Amino acid sequence: MASTFGTLFRISTWGESHGGGVGVVIDGCPPRLPLSEADIQPDLDRRRPGQSDIVTPRKEEDTCAILSGVFRGLTLGTPISIMVKNTDARPEAYSEMETHYRPSHADFTYQAKYGTRNWEGGGRSSARETIGRVAAAAVAKKLLRTLYPDLEILAWVAVVHDIEAEVDPDLVLAADIESNPVRCPDAAAADRMAERIRQVRGEGDSVGGIIEAVVRGCPVGLGEPVFDRLEADLAKGMLSLPATKGFEIGSGFSGTVLRGSEHNDAYKMEGGRVRTTSNLSGGVQGGISNGEPIVFRVAFKPTATISREQATVTVSGEDSTLAARGRHDPCVLPRAVPMVEAMAALVLCDHVLRQRGLDILPR
Amino acid sequence: MASTFGTLFRISTWGESHGGGVGVVIDGCPPRLPLSEADIQPDLDRRRPGQSDIVTPRKEEDTCAILSGVFRGLTLGTPISIMVKNTDARPEAYSEMETHYRPSHADFTYQAKYGTRNWEGGGRSSARETIGRVAAAAVAKKLLRTLYPDLEILAWVAVVHDIEAEVDPDLVLAADIESNPVRCPDAAAADRMAERIRQVRGEGDSVGGIIEAVVRGCPVGLGEPVFDRLEADLAKGMLSLPATKGFEIGSGFSGTVLRGSEHNDAYKMEGGRVRTTSNLSGGVQGGISNGEPIVFRVAFKPTATISREQATVTVSGEDSTLAARGRHDPCVLPRAVPMVEAMAALVLCDHVLRQRGLDILPR
Amino acid sequence: MASTFGTLFRISTWGESHGGGVGVVIDGCPPRLPLSEADIQPDLDRRRPGQSDIVTPRKEEDTCAILSGVFRGLTLGTPISIMVKNTDARPEAYSEMETHYRPSHADFTYQAKYGTRNWEGGGRSSARETIGRVAAAAVAKKLLRTLYPDLEILAWVAVVHDIEAEVDPDLVLAADIESNPVRCPDAAAADRMAERIRQVRGEGDSVGGIIEAVVRGCPVGLGEPVFDRLEADLAKGMLSLPATKGFEIGSGFSGTVLRGSEHNDAYKMEGGRVRTTSNLSGGVQGGISNGEPIVFRVAFKPTATISREQATVTVSGEDSTLAARGRHDPCVLPRAVPMVEAMAALVLCDHVLRQRGLDILPR
Amino acid sequence: MASTFGTLFRISTWGESHGGGVGVVIDGCPPRLPLSEADIQPDLDRRRPGQSDIVTPRKEEDTCAILSGVFRGLTLGTPISIMVKNTDARPEAYSEMETHYRPSHADFTYQAKYGTRNWEGGGRSSARETIGRVAAAAVAKKLLRTLYPDLEILAWVAVVHDIEAEVDPDLVLAADIESNPVRCPDAAAADRMAERIRQVRGEGDSVGGIIEAVVRGCPVGLGEPVFDRLEADLAKGMLSLPATKGFEIGSGFSGTVLRGSEHNDAYKMEGGRVRTTSNLSGGVQGGISNGEPIVFRVAFKPTATISREQATVTVSGEDSTLAARGRHDPCVLPRAVPMVEAMAALVLCDHVLRQRGLDILPR
Repeated sequence: MASTFGTLFRISTWGESHGGGVGVVIDGCPPRLPLSEADIQPDLDRRRPGQSDIVTPRKEEDTCAILSGVFRGLTLGTPISIMVKNTDARPEAYSEMETHYRPSHADFTYQAKYGTRNWEGGGRSSARETIGRVAAAAVAKKLLRTLYPDLEILAWVAVVHDIEAEVDPDLVLAADIESNPVRCPDAAAADRMAERIRQVRGEGDSVGGIIEAVVRGCPVGLGEPVFDRLEADLAKGMLSLPATKGFEIGSGFSGTVLRGSEHNDAYKMEGGRVRTTSNLSGGVQGGISNGEPIVFRVAFKPTATISREQATVTVSGEDSTLAARGRHDPCVLPRAVPMVEAMAALVLCDHVLRQRGLDILPR
Repeated sequence: MASTFGTLFRISTWGESHGGGVGVVIDGCPPRLPLSEADIQPDLDRRRPGQSDIVTPRKEEDTCAILSGVFRGLTLGTPISIMVKNTDARPEAYSEMETHYRPSHADFTYQAKYGTRNWEGGGRSSARETIGRVAAAAVAKKLLRTLYPDLEILAWVAVVHDIEAEVDPDLVLAADIESNPVRCPDAAAADRMAERIRQVRGEGDSVGGIIEAVVRGCPVGLGEPVFDRLEADLAKGMLSLPATKGFEIGSGFSGTVLRGSEHNDAYKMEGGRVRTTSNLSGGVQGGISNGEPIVFRVAFKPTATISREQATVTVSGEDSTLAARGRHDPCVLPRAVPMVEAMAALVLCDHVLRQRGLDILPR
Repeated sequence: MASTFGTLFRISTWGESHGGGVGVVIDGCPPRLPLSEADIQPDLDRRRPGQSDIVTPRKEEDTCAILSGVFRGLTLGTPISIMVKNTDARPEAYSEMETHYRPSHADFTYQAKYGTRNWEGGGRSSARETIGRVAAAAVAKKLLRTLYPDLEILAWVAVVHDIEAEVDPDLVLAADIESNPVRCPDAAAADRMAERIRQVRGEGDSVGGIIEAVVRGCPVGLGEPVFDRLEADLAKGMLSLPATKGFEIGSGFSGTVLRGSEHNDAYKMEGGRVRTTSNLSGGVQGGISNGEPIVFRVAFKPTATISREQATVTVSGEDSTLAARGRHDPCVLPRAVPMVEAMAALVLCDHVLRQRGLDILPR
Repeated sequence: MASTFGTLFRISTWGESHGGGVGVVIDGCPPRLPLSEADIQPDLDRRRPGQSDIVTPRKEEDTCAILSGVFRGLTLGTPISIMVKNTDARPEAYSEMETHYRPSHADFTYQAKYGTRNWEGGGRSSARETIGRVAAAAVAKKLLRTLYPDLEILAWVAVVHDIEAEVDPDLVLAADIESNPVRCPDAAAADRMAERIRQVRGEGDSVGGIIEAVVRGCPVGLGEPVFDRLEADLAKGMLSLPATKGFEIGSGFSGTVLRGSEHNDAYKMEGGRVRTTSNLSGGVQGGISNGEPIVFRVAFKPTATISREQATVTVSGEDSTLAARGRHDPCVLPRAVPMVEAMAALVLCDHVLRQRGLDILPR
């Protein structure tokens, strides 16, 4: 079940970076949702390698095929199987991974845990695995849009290395995010970020950063205390993405320096609805969405695979060094933006179905 | 399943802050573990209210009883039911909660989600719910100790408001943590923290902070990519605790300003084992423990319930104000330390059993 | 998870026949359902020992207490914890079970699996465990009644030993079932069954039989192929009851001697609904309820615990003999009737919530 | 999750009878198991249509491809995705299914539940779905064989219509089962069965029957009371197969006419092990395997799809008639034999891993 996510809208991803392909099976998608590959492909294109000069040059079309669960343009309520073939596999570029563990990568821990591993590329630990998530999330997003036309999930690059963007989560637009290859809606910051990424790549190095996200138009009442609080499931979803090291919602870590009287979001009535005058809660209170924008941030470490020489050990237990060949992103954040959106969509969609199953008696 | 946590070592907590009691059922604890209430009570005592002048004065003995699953001092392999009665319930102190939503508390969202709520105290959203987690985790810790005598889980208060402690996760001792009511092993910082807590309480206000934790002696190979990565399950566990707003592991958010060449933990052979020369990964790589100390931090917001008057709305939809009565912690962190340890123990214990089930073929 | 049943309406039972008590936690009951102990106690009274001279004389009041999840008479949407204390425990009556395995009972297999066991009474394998199921099912039945006032779940004793009752599943009434201690609505057969039970008890022996059940008024569309077909979940629920050896739905085993042209249930329109002219399917087609009465049968073996001397072995591995003391039912069927109804209610309630979560888009 | 089966060895099947293909994802297969398509194809060939003149003439190669989870001939511990393409789809043969519900088939209930359906062939309700199960079970069987070389799972056709075979579950051999297209090891009965099947096919009709199965060499201690008893999970697995109407284990329904003194399996010591002198329990006591052969029987109804004209209704709600075209089996049992074996293997494999996870402390 390690590769299964969600309770009612449940996805199971499969596939290694080098092998027959990658894919996902969605079990629990409601019937009668209009769906075709055209709903999925755009999100796959956003996470695809080779989109610009600041990401990995690996060439993959990442063309998806829906193999089941859809008939005459509508979902059947049966499992939806989506597959993307691997095409640009060059395992010979990874031959040293057979014998050497890349520092801070998953090579050593996979070998230790499983007693074997696919050392061609990252195997299962490759970001290529997220194709299945992004594909499934495209279905989740379509379902959410159908049920809640005002619901919008947006993520963007907020920080690269020490370059911070200025972005207002309440106002940021998808078009601004997509207007540059960094996926940072602050155009000036985006330029500097791109420059920094090119620079470190040139130096055989890498950088990390922070992705911020907002869910606007989320209905009140999603999230299931005590364990399946909305922020807990978001945290799990985000920390399940490769290269993530942190998650915070609303005021997050910076909110710890405020007093309760400063931090509390006062309530007011507005248009017949209960609203808050501030949003340090980040749209979630007591584990349940309160109707305000859900705002959260995810920390990504610098890419572990770098071409600089590093100290490491061999599979046979000898100290050695390694300078990675192969193709890799000097900064994962631009391509991680659709992954963050995907995990948010999967969490929300699952909780929409769960709340629907729970809220069955008249009020 | 919202109140169920874990896959093989699975706990289900129940209970409201005011009602018959609170408790937990553990389904999946291995048989033949020596167990009695004496193994559980000390951890409950650590999270109990009324321990010192910096926590809530609510008086609860929180005495646990094991109702099933243990026979002649050994676990049976059947569900272990543990119960703690509520004794010091004074629901009249909460009467205004019936009509007013406390800002940034769960009152409004519970009402919106469920269409009803137990407004006496925090109901299910009360920290009192964590008794079940702490009790179950005491069992998990005993099992972990039995299997891995060197495994040690320690949490402590690292920051209160703007006061930061200096603590070395590799060296911190349980005795130092427990040496003061703040549960901060830096005695000088602990004094200032206690002073600050008393001060804000006097002002009818509250403060938050950061709890840091370390797992030392963790075996290599725990955590199940891609979704049940160890850090993902830890993040979920921590964000499921009341008042949490953030989680980070290893370098966390601060690691985003490093380059890959600075951030990567180089491998070396040491004593026949693969070790790392630094630990910015925080003991987890690719979602799997690497044998180094697991280090993580959890952000807690300032307590939402404060006695200062705040703007809010009534259940019937009118703007109003509220100054909370009732008993509450001016700072949740000292009592949250055993909760953080508990969630870590539950995650680790579950993954130990899972890895045992998976690692079945000869190497 | 071995003691957890259900996906959305999920129950976790706990408790041994001798120990602090037995109980259940229901996680996932929708909020706003009127509920009190008075909704649960009648079903517990039906399964209680000591009701008549044909069941075990063990004296237990089996008085239930709701410990959480209900406030001011309404469910909260939080876990409902229900407990029944053990009172009439006489473990000394079971002392020989410490050393001898009862043939065809769970003593040996529990010892082999867990390496330990509670040998006082049946421990966890005792029918006393079903108290938690029956209590949870009383909640499920109340929810079902609220949502589907015409839905009715009835089980009765159809066969004891070689005595068969004549009962029409379409017409049988609850009052007729409860009109005699055997719970067989065919009064003449009931008399003979009671006589047979008394006879075998007098001979230190036991008998089994068949319980039949019907669900009338079930909505169309419950059951989730391919694995969670309604009949599959019913089969699992029934075979999870102690002493069961078989399950069949509709025509069951006897339907295997028919041809397709004889067995198929022809469709017809009736009152604007699709109906069938016969019901050999037993109300389920393709794993999904079709709106016709769901009819199924469950085989119960003769009680394993008998007072006649039998060949067995000791815990230390020596051939020996055993004549059971202690109190036991010479025929479990009368008390198993509410258990069968309980498992049916739990399965149906779970599938109602699941279908509600799935059927979210406009038709 | 409706298409997911198992807890630790968890499979998710996908696919319709007409569409891109069918397949399965196995999540939880232990690493380091030697595996290739050659381990899977033979079982697929056994369930394939077109094997003989007594099954459906649909021509499918059913060639499987492993798309992930295996590297250099060994399982990786990551999800194993297996796919079989649909090739001989002739949806035009099913055009009347668009407008007419086949009696006792899943057409009506799928339409009622999902509000849509794939009416080409049986869609998801087709026996073609079981390809995924059989493929996954081939992996489970290989794992079981590796761990327990003496463990053997055999199923055979015991009854067709009113023709009963004579077979001794303790002695039956795989070769005898496979020696004729009926898969009945009693050659004389097999001849009569084949004759009967040809006869009813000639009359545009169909027949059902009973499949019996045995698991020999099963280790003691599998099965997890109270809900996940071995027989409960077997019952669910079997009743999740298309066309099944009943399940019984050991003495089953016929055991209800015995007294306890006749039914109990006395224990004896034999070769240092606890054995039983009879096996009316069918290898399971208290929900846990006792080391004796596990013997169970599954009732299959006559195939619903027949070419004789039957009364039915149309999708638009009018009384009508239907004589099915398309290709179908006049008797599903010969091809259901590998399906029964498959579900047994999946249940056992899951419980082996579960017991391994539970049995962690020294005895």
